[in-house]
Amino acid sequence: MILTVTLNTALDITHRVPSLRPGSSHRVSEVTERPGGKGVNVARVLAALGHEVTVTGFAGGTTGRILRDRLTEVPGLVDALVPVSGPTRRTVAVVDARSGSTTQLNEPGPTIAHAEWSAFQAVYGDLLASASAVALCGSLPPGVPVGAYAGLVRTARTAGVPVLLDTSGAALRRGVAGRPDILKPNAEELAELTGFHEPLRAAQDARRRGAGTVVASLGPEGLLALTPEGHWRAAPPARLPGNPTGAGDSVVAGLLSALVEHRPWPDRLARATALSAATVLSPTAGDFDRPAYERLLPDVRVTGEANAA
Amino acid sequence: MILTVTLNTALDITHRVPSLRPGSSHRVSEVTERPGGKGVNVARVLAALGHEVTVTGFAGGTTGRILRDRLTEVPGLVDALVPVSGPTRRTVAVVDARSGSTTQLNEPGPTIAHAEWSAFQAVYGDLLASASAVALCGSLPPGVPVGAYAGLVRTARTAGVPVLLDTSGAALRRGVAGRPDILKPNAEELAELTGFHEPLRAAQDARRRGAGTVVASLGPEGLLALTPEGHWRAAPPARLPGNPTGAGDSVVAGLLSALVEHRPWPDRLARATALSAATVLSPTAGDFDRPAYERLLPDVRVTGEANAA
Repeated sequence: MILTVTLNTALDITHRVPSLRPGSSHRVSEVTERPGGKGVNVARVLAALGHEVTVTGFAGGTTGRILRDRLTEVPGLVDALVPVSGPTRRTVAVVDARSGSTTQLNEPGPTIAHAEWSAFQAVYGDLLASASAVALCGSLPPGVPVGAYAGLVRTARTAGVPVLLDTSGAALRRGVAGRPDILKPNAEELAELTGFHEPLRAAQDARRRGAGTVVASLGPEGLLALTPEGHWRAAPPARLPGNPTGAGDSVVAGLLSALVEHRPWPDRLARATALSAATVLSPTAGDFDRPAYERLLPDVRVTGEANAA
Repeated sequence: MILTVTLNTALDITHRVPSLRPGSSHRVSEVTERPGGKGVNVARVLAALGHEVTVTGFAGGTTGRILRDRLTEVPGLVDALVPVSGPTRRTVAVVDARSGSTTQLNEPGPTIAHAEWSAFQAVYGDLLASASAVALCGSLPPGVPVGAYAGLVRTARTAGVPVLLDTSGAALRRGVAGRPDILKPNAEELAELTGFHEPLRAAQDARRRGAGTVVASLGPEGLLALTPEGHWRAAPPARLPGNPTGAGDSVVAGLLSALVEHRPWPDRLARATALSAATVLSPTAGDFDRPAYERLLPDVRVTGEANAA
């Protein structure tokens, strides 16, 4: 199975309003609610692709109970979340129906006790024994040490499990030092990590900081990959209109699914790019449009080259 | 006891953000969550004033369970909510810490089944037998007939229980025809009901439409009351800065508490005005500042006169 780690899971609420006017009162015309947090989103895409996937991280309180109830409805997904005493956070995405723009409100998450963090590390170690790859995704909740991801990366490497890291800020800066096999930043995270705004130069710097491979997601321009085997760019056939929420999580799912199928890098990047584009095209934020995925996949342009043998 | 009816109860969530920028992602710096809906807020103030109060209306789903759990923490408050299959709605108030302005997102609420509405009416009839006054507050959830309040007003009048109505739109227009003893609109609701923007003329028209007494809340200018016993205005000693959320609910609590204590109209209006002002001054939306209430009460200016005997 593929393991995804979401230390700061969330109950994602979407409120659709005719038009968002700050300082006013709004009647919400449509409400949706579903399990979230980046690793949970990655797992949902992996399960939809037919992979066995296990979700771990933390869940607590009433919001955590709703989240776990809803995860049981996803075929192929196993819930190995560790219970905590604090309540799982909510996120609220307010979608303005007129402009199509989304305003996001993210609660900070429960404070994790030292004993809860220790319990998680034990569960994580056990799960790695049967994992073919692991993704470490998203922000750290209060109470988890800022160097947490570096430790989790090292545990995976010791267990011989390929590990991908997708986070931001201090958690990213500290995590990359653990030498993850794959780092998946977006352009902004990569610039913040390295100080370089030119993606190629920034990706080279991120590899020097410890990442084996860097796959940078550059929004509508697609992916840039610097790997030990070569360097590539992958781009969708056209600029696509839609909601980019979850596009980065679909990149992670695409990369890991193709990795465990032993596909070469150009195939991994094509799949990640097509999945990401099909997520932008989906009417529901964070879902992907499967016919669009299948239609786009053969048309993704991958350029670059493998290193000389 | 005093009975408050909240057909569309809510779990009120407040998200404090440094500055709300539409289309952006925000880290919420502070989260609070509490039972809401106008009648629940009225009940909380009545309980804080030392009155026995019973809350009825609907509650369902996980949000309804949280709401009922939290109501058990309020001393003097009895929960007589009727269970429904749909989940109680949430409201999200986003407070911009920089400007102090509040952006409100109100979910519509669960659809009430015909059998659930019938079950409520039976409970309501039973509760009236031991009620000294009843307040009917807030919006109607989907599934409840738009004429609901007119029926509930008539049931209360038949039972000889003084009934106050505080709602808006079509529910108000239909409800006033049931001849409530007290109607408590704000300036905007009163103008929408009557078509008159001048409060005195609008209040006179609302009495013609069926209200025994009209107490209009005019924001910082205080209250205007047209009653069978006379007409009065009540105003706080000064314009007060703060958050008006819940100020109208405190007016209802002030009016009903003084009514069941058999106080004359000027005393009722003074209490309602001081409670409302102390709610605006409270740092927590919808709570009132008790020392401010006690300090303001003797300084409320009530002008007007009783009718000739």
